[in-house]
Amino acid sequence: MADLSLVTVDDVRAAADRIAGVAVRTPLLPSLWADPDRPLWLKPESLQATGAFKIRGALNAIGSLSADERRRGVIAHSSGNHAQAVAYAAKLAGVQATIVMPDTTPEIKQNLTRSHGAEVIIVPPDERDTYSAKLVDAHGFVSIPPYDDPRIIAGQGTVGLEILAELSDVDVVLVPVSGGGLSSGVALTVKALRPEAAVVLVEPELAGDAAESLRTGERVTWTTAQTYRTMADGLRTTSVGVLPWEHLRRYVDGVVTVTEDEIAEAVRVLARKARLVAEPSGAVATAGYLFHADELPAGRCHVAVVSGGNVDPAQYAALLDGGR
Amino acid sequence: MADLSLVTVDDVRAAADRIAGVAVRTPLLPSLWADPDRPLWLKPESLQATGAFKIRGALNAIGSLSADERRRGVIAHSSGNHAQAVAYAAKLAGVQATIVMPDTTPEIKQNLTRSHGAEVIIVPPDERDTYSAKLVDAHGFVSIPPYDDPRIIAGQGTVGLEILAELSDVDVVLVPVSGGGLSSGVALTVKALRPEAAVVLVEPELAGDAAESLRTGERVTWTTAQTYRTMADGLRTTSVGVLPWEHLRRYVDGVVTVTEDEIAEAVRVLARKARLVAEPSGAVATAGYLFHADELPAGRCHVAVVSGGNVDPAQYAALLDGGR
Repeated sequence: MADLSLVTVDDVRAAADRIAGVAVRTPLLPSLWADPDRPLWLKPESLQATGAFKIRGALNAIGSLSADERRRGVIAHSSGNHAQAVAYAAKLAGVQATIVMPDTTPEIKQNLTRSHGAEVIIVPPDERDTYSAKLVDAHGFVSIPPYDDPRIIAGQGTVGLEILAELSDVDVVLVPVSGGGLSSGVALTVKALRPEAAVVLVEPELAGDAAESLRTGERVTWTTAQTYRTMADGLRTTSVGVLPWEHLRRYVDGVVTVTEDEIAEAVRVLARKARLVAEPSGAVATAGYLFHADELPAGRCHVAVVSGGNVDPAQYAALLDGGR
Repeated sequence: MADLSLVTVDDVRAAADRIAGVAVRTPLLPSLWADPDRPLWLKPESLQATGAFKIRGALNAIGSLSADERRRGVIAHSSGNHAQAVAYAAKLAGVQATIVMPDTTPEIKQNLTRSHGAEVIIVPPDERDTYSAKLVDAHGFVSIPPYDDPRIIAGQGTVGLEILAELSDVDVVLVPVSGGGLSSGVALTVKALRPEAAVVLVEPELAGDAAESLRTGERVTWTTAQTYRTMADGLRTTSVGVLPWEHLRRYVDGVVTVTEDEIAEAVRVLARKARLVAEPSGAVATAGYLFHADELPAGRCHVAVVSGGNVDPAQYAALLDGGR
């Protein structure tokens, strides 16, 4: 990547204009059950139409295409929330989308993606990248990456913009980290608008590459054998992206890691007390608030981003029943 | 009740000003999984801080008190969502609240009510009304009724105001009915702002007093032995209130009743597809959309109000597991 210029809050504001009226402006929910000395608000991105924040970046990226790029169509590879988001955003924009999915993707997710009118191509997991590259070469498709892209970072940053608009005196913002699109977008936005607020990343201990990166100051990569141990299947990326990293190392104040039991308990708390269906990945920031207060920067008003709610129904029922 | 003058949309607008910034302005959520010929938006009142729409009416009623009334304090009798709402709204307003609860109220709900600073008085169920009246006489408390009150109706009507503000071309609004505070507030507001939209009540078949009332044109009363058969414990009121009835008979276009199995399935659909934790009472309007399309007025854009999400965790886990 030749150009590593950072995304600015003006880019985020432009993204907000592009996605207005399509992405849900999710409310900031007060949490009466939280510690009254550290009042908590939740930002429930699980309520987006595709069930996760990813729609913001996808809408911004596709909304930024030139007329020529729109004609060529877009391509993405993902088995998860990014696939849904690109397929849906492309449909709304009248742009053809091709989604490359590993053959391990559950059929329900393949069908959901097709239901938005996208062409779905199933490949062995290790051919995902090369196959996409081949299609780009052959058809001129425009690639929409999941996080390592300034348009994606700016789109996800609108979460931060909305938090500040509703709660201008926020002190601590907790955000999950995986590839770093959401976390870098939120971090740059919060720091631009309220530098005295702290942005804290939360990550599963079992997929703690970003935590290690921030602690060592070097962007490290874990193996999939490591990161696939966490049930938080949206946070198994083995390293943060190159461009997100440039934001995270500048703008982030801290990082905490959470255990699988803490994630499971946070899923239950969100259901019982906040009445939100969160996927495990979506519950990690809340787990950070609940179980790692002593590692967080001092501050009164806390926000936790609930990043998504796409969870297998059987797994969810088992979690609510007290399992992991 | 001497004065049966109807609540107006101006009363609802005044209520909106009173509750702004305290009640959550819940989003209107597009539902990609719904019938594309009858697109559906959900209004998730389950996301209010106390888990149900009731906070709107309580905030408006308490916000309307005179200085003298505020000094005297308020009283309500309820075992459920109205109790939480009055206790919380009173705390925010700096007004003392006394809540009379039947001794059948689960301890968790008693404690929640106390956690908002209310005094909770536990009485046998059949002494609830008389005991409250005694306290009003003895202490001069101001009674905040759950639905049969113009301030409550106006407060709940703000749900309708917000629906119209987001979706001005709505065609069919589905709203649950019990005592009639929410349904009459929404109905009068929708009819004032968009007379061509249809307002349809949804009620459990096993507590179908409002349906019978609307069909016969007379406000009928069922027995608690009848209404307590439904699992939708927020909708067991045995008749709609006197003042709500005057609105419902004028402004409502239709009513459908739903079975217990349909309610249970709607709870599951809301969890799996909309990522909302709904209590059975909160899912009935969605059940009406899902299972009674042929009884609804013609129209394209549908809204279903998800009225609340306070459900016992064990009951909820069982529902998600496929039970009733």
